[in-house]
Amino acid sequence: MKKTVIGITVVGKDREGIVAAFTNFVFENGGNIEKINQNVIKGLFGMYLEASFTKTVDVEKFDSGIQLLSKIEKMDVSTHHETNAEKNIAIMVTKEPLCLETILEASKKKTLNGIISIIIGTEKTLEPIAKKAKIPFVVLEETNQEKAEEKIIAICKKYEIDLIVLARYMKILSPNFVWRYPNRIINIHPSLLPAFPGALAYAQAYERGTKIVGVTSHYVTENLDQGPIIFQDSFKVDPNDTLEEIKAKGQKLEADTLLKAVKMHLENKLEVRWRKVHVKSK
Amino acid sequence: MKKTVIGITVVGKDREGIVAAFTNFVFENGGNIEKINQNVIKGLFGMYLEASFTKTVDVEKFDSGIQLLSKIEKMDVSTHHETNAEKNIAIMVTKEPLCLETILEASKKKTLNGIISIIIGTEKTLEPIAKKAKIPFVVLEETNQEKAEEKIIAICKKYEIDLIVLARYMKILSPNFVWRYPNRIINIHPSLLPAFPGALAYAQAYERGTKIVGVTSHYVTENLDQGPIIFQDSFKVDPNDTLEEIKAKGQKLEADTLLKAVKMHLENKLEVRWRKVHVKSK
Amino acid sequence: MKKTVIGITVVGKDREGIVAAFTNFVFENGGNIEKINQNVIKGLFGMYLEASFTKTVDVEKFDSGIQLLSKIEKMDVSTHHETNAEKNIAIMVTKEPLCLETILEASKKKTLNGIISIIIGTEKTLEPIAKKAKIPFVVLEETNQEKAEEKIIAICKKYEIDLIVLARYMKILSPNFVWRYPNRIINIHPSLLPAFPGALAYAQAYERGTKIVGVTSHYVTENLDQGPIIFQDSFKVDPNDTLEEIKAKGQKLEADTLLKAVKMHLENKLEVRWRKVHVKSK
Amino acid sequence: MKKTVIGITVVGKDREGIVAAFTNFVFENGGNIEKINQNVIKGLFGMYLEASFTKTVDVEKFDSGIQLLSKIEKMDVSTHHETNAEKNIAIMVTKEPLCLETILEASKKKTLNGIISIIIGTEKTLEPIAKKAKIPFVVLEETNQEKAEEKIIAICKKYEIDLIVLARYMKILSPNFVWRYPNRIINIHPSLLPAFPGALAYAQAYERGTKIVGVTSHYVTENLDQGPIIFQDSFKVDPNDTLEEIKAKGQKLEADTLLKAVKMHLENKLEVRWRKVHVKSK
Repeated sequence: MKKTVIGITVVGKDREGIVAAFTNFVFENGGNIEKINQNVIKGLFGMYLEASFTKTVDVEKFDSGIQLLSKIEKMDVSTHHETNAEKNIAIMVTKEPLCLETILEASKKKTLNGIISIIIGTEKTLEPIAKKAKIPFVVLEETNQEKAEEKIIAICKKYEIDLIVLARYMKILSPNFVWRYPNRIINIHPSLLPAFPGALAYAQAYERGTKIVGVTSHYVTENLDQGPIIFQDSFKVDPNDTLEEIKAKGQKLEADTLLKAVKMHLENKLEVRWRKVHVKSK
Repeated sequence: MKKTVIGITVVGKDREGIVAAFTNFVFENGGNIEKINQNVIKGLFGMYLEASFTKTVDVEKFDSGIQLLSKIEKMDVSTHHETNAEKNIAIMVTKEPLCLETILEASKKKTLNGIISIIIGTEKTLEPIAKKAKIPFVVLEETNQEKAEEKIIAICKKYEIDLIVLARYMKILSPNFVWRYPNRIINIHPSLLPAFPGALAYAQAYERGTKIVGVTSHYVTENLDQGPIIFQDSFKVDPNDTLEEIKAKGQKLEADTLLKAVKMHLENKLEVRWRKVHVKSK
Repeated sequence: MKKTVIGITVVGKDREGIVAAFTNFVFENGGNIEKINQNVIKGLFGMYLEASFTKTVDVEKFDSGIQLLSKIEKMDVSTHHETNAEKNIAIMVTKEPLCLETILEASKKKTLNGIISIIIGTEKTLEPIAKKAKIPFVVLEETNQEKAEEKIIAICKKYEIDLIVLARYMKILSPNFVWRYPNRIINIHPSLLPAFPGALAYAQAYERGTKIVGVTSHYVTENLDQGPIIFQDSFKVDPNDTLEEIKAKGQKLEADTLLKAVKMHLENKLEVRWRKVHVKSK
Repeated sequence: MKKTVIGITVVGKDREGIVAAFTNFVFENGGNIEKINQNVIKGLFGMYLEASFTKTVDVEKFDSGIQLLSKIEKMDVSTHHETNAEKNIAIMVTKEPLCLETILEASKKKTLNGIISIIIGTEKTLEPIAKKAKIPFVVLEETNQEKAEEKIIAICKKYEIDLIVLARYMKILSPNFVWRYPNRIINIHPSLLPAFPGALAYAQAYERGTKIVGVTSHYVTENLDQGPIIFQDSFKVDPNDTLEEIKAKGQKLEADTLLKAVKMHLENKLEVRWRKVHVKSK
């Protein structure tokens, strides 16, 4: 019998005793702690814990118990267990269309094991694409990062989002957001990370005179552009290539590499072990 | 009643179930997990866990139990609990004398709450200083890092070392070593970290034309020069100061700042919470 | 007799022969090249050259000659020679008031050897302060960086600006702008550079747990936050200090350190030699 | 008629007037300055200047003139002009054999447009390979960097070396050495620069979980691992690949990529313009 694994995220104001409270709960319910990571940034506590259960576990009872505990401890808690059910996807965008279009195209062709529930934009530019695909589009009018993220969290709860895809979303996400979706936010970055981590990756690669330019799809962690790498792909450039030519090739590769990562994730084929992503051999 | 806190380090070959084995042991013995950190680098697993016990705990029984478990799981385990007993200190050096001399001087004046049990050198240069102070001196003849560190580990076990002081020790220590002494290795670095993390800090600061030069004492983690900062101190420089003058001032400050950190650690006045060092208010 | 020194900046589309054209001109007019630096970024050529003249030189004739050459070569050229005349200052701001207020206060007290001709803001927030001081205030409505900088260049030409002060100006300036004002743009950065070069310096220092926090005034070059350091100052922090307390102290120090650098520059007391700033001993 | 281009390097103690002295000399001899770069590090001045001559220039007379000037100015000066004559090559090594063997093999097959005059090692490990190929081998016994480099400079003068190949040479070269061979030292680095610039590139890439690993051949400048990139090549890795497998593939690629760069350089097919390497189209 395959053992049940429950992932638990705990986010809230840091204080003593939080680790003990939740690990005790897991033990008392017959769970073994397989992985546990915590972090504190600016007084915010985030913990991700994976518990395995060898005996049959009443997942609903476990969930209601941990929600009760979360109220007592005043922490936001969510649980997550792998299923083969179709996953709900939120796509977050700014103004570059190609990554979004490529994922929508795959969805239309029914090659995605998931449903695109919502598209969230920092601006209106890509709204027509969402409309054409008949998917709700929300604009983040709020410029205050904290409030904007509260809105995204509310949307993700409403649509019961399992996977968030950053399809050239050009804002930074705070730990308060990222910690709620451990290994469930996928980003595409226009460089072979860890090279050129910033916002102007193609221009920097061009200026530096690199002969190989590439892209990286990765899970998002609290460290910008440092999350576990899922896939990378690259192409050769010539010093005579213009920046525009490099960008055009790069954007095509971004879309393909992001789609590949999203597909594999939706099919439960990816596993993160110690910050490295493994493709399950089955 | 003050609750007992036991720190547990587990180091060994990574495999599934290790986290569960040791957290289960803690729970079954009535402990609460207050902190827990794990890491894996190149297949080596390292975990540091702090358990608190509200009921009286038989520390010796706990220790022998966990040593038994460590044999079953084939991991190296050590436990540590804060006492007011004098601590055993190992000082590790290369060839710069001032930091070593300053700590020996403090020891002679009986202002250190600890005993310098051994001095370990990567070369013989400072042996005469050790001899004069009548403290055993060991030269690491071994150039292979793994074997050299095995020797240091053996020495530290033999002398029951509680604190390791890197007094201008010019080699890098591997995670396999560092993880065995969480927050118990203190280093002095000749810059205001995170600026100039490398080996040539004064020369780089001089070249860069910085107007403030400083030093940093810090606990050592697996990330070189990124451990929790204990103290920093600085002085102003003038563009006309020569590199030699800057170095001379800096070395004096290194010795003072390292000594200050060592003293405070030995008096149990330092506490690391989330990678920040707090000086206990009592 | 003190020799005349003329600084020449040449900015424009890169092509062969530009270096030769302008160095030949200097030679033919009896000049010796004391310093010469060029750079090319994305096809834009920038050169700064300092020529000394031992014989008396007709500066006006030299200027009109080089302007004629600049038309032939299709490059933007400007010349600059040190005088004791009062300098025209442009202050560039975003929304933090303290640095601006501190410089205006010094100007009111007549302790600045210069006239604040114009204040340029990326937004309107600080306009009231400018109004109260009866200094023209321009808002950069243009969001396109290239066009915004064209506007700044036009303003600086109109007001014959000698010195540009970035008083917490939160946008990046391109090489096309920066190269036109070699060692004549002064910025204040809220960290002890090279540590924490980015936009969130205090928060990063706070997160990192540094015990010394500081500020840096520096000349601006094409490499963000890497220009020659003029002054640095610092203060000690305690792990119990909040981020807000650190920011408040830091902002006061920013204003003082920026003002000190601006004053010294206006009094011709600063000299940049090989990326290091020297305070002239008279 | 193709114009003559002479490259001039000037290295020595920094002082005022050096730039003027040498640029004046070029002008007085009918040269146009096409490129000019200077730098000062720790009081050492280095300048590289390329002068073109439209009229016929007596290269020998120019050379003896500039050598005379160099004695007056107490600077080390050397000139260099592109010829189609076979170039003299020095190969510098530490202990990895593959890059050296690959270049020697190419030389044996007469596919290199140059003669390997000397092999310089930081240790004796590769001496047998040199012996077998009947090429003189020198061990740098000197551990003091300055003295070791003086020896290398003397060797390079003796053998009239045109090109220095760093075939996994594991020491850092100082500006005093590097400035004497502008764009004439080729290194191979085991990563896709600018990623993983340090000494442990494969291990870092492996730890980071990158999916693409590569190598970079580049000209050496005073900034370690930041010189103009000549070629890059890469291969895909799987999370299940061991570090040893990655290293083995990487070392093969290093040898091929270094050889390719060396060959192209020897055939005068490479041109450095503004820190980018262009392959001449003929």
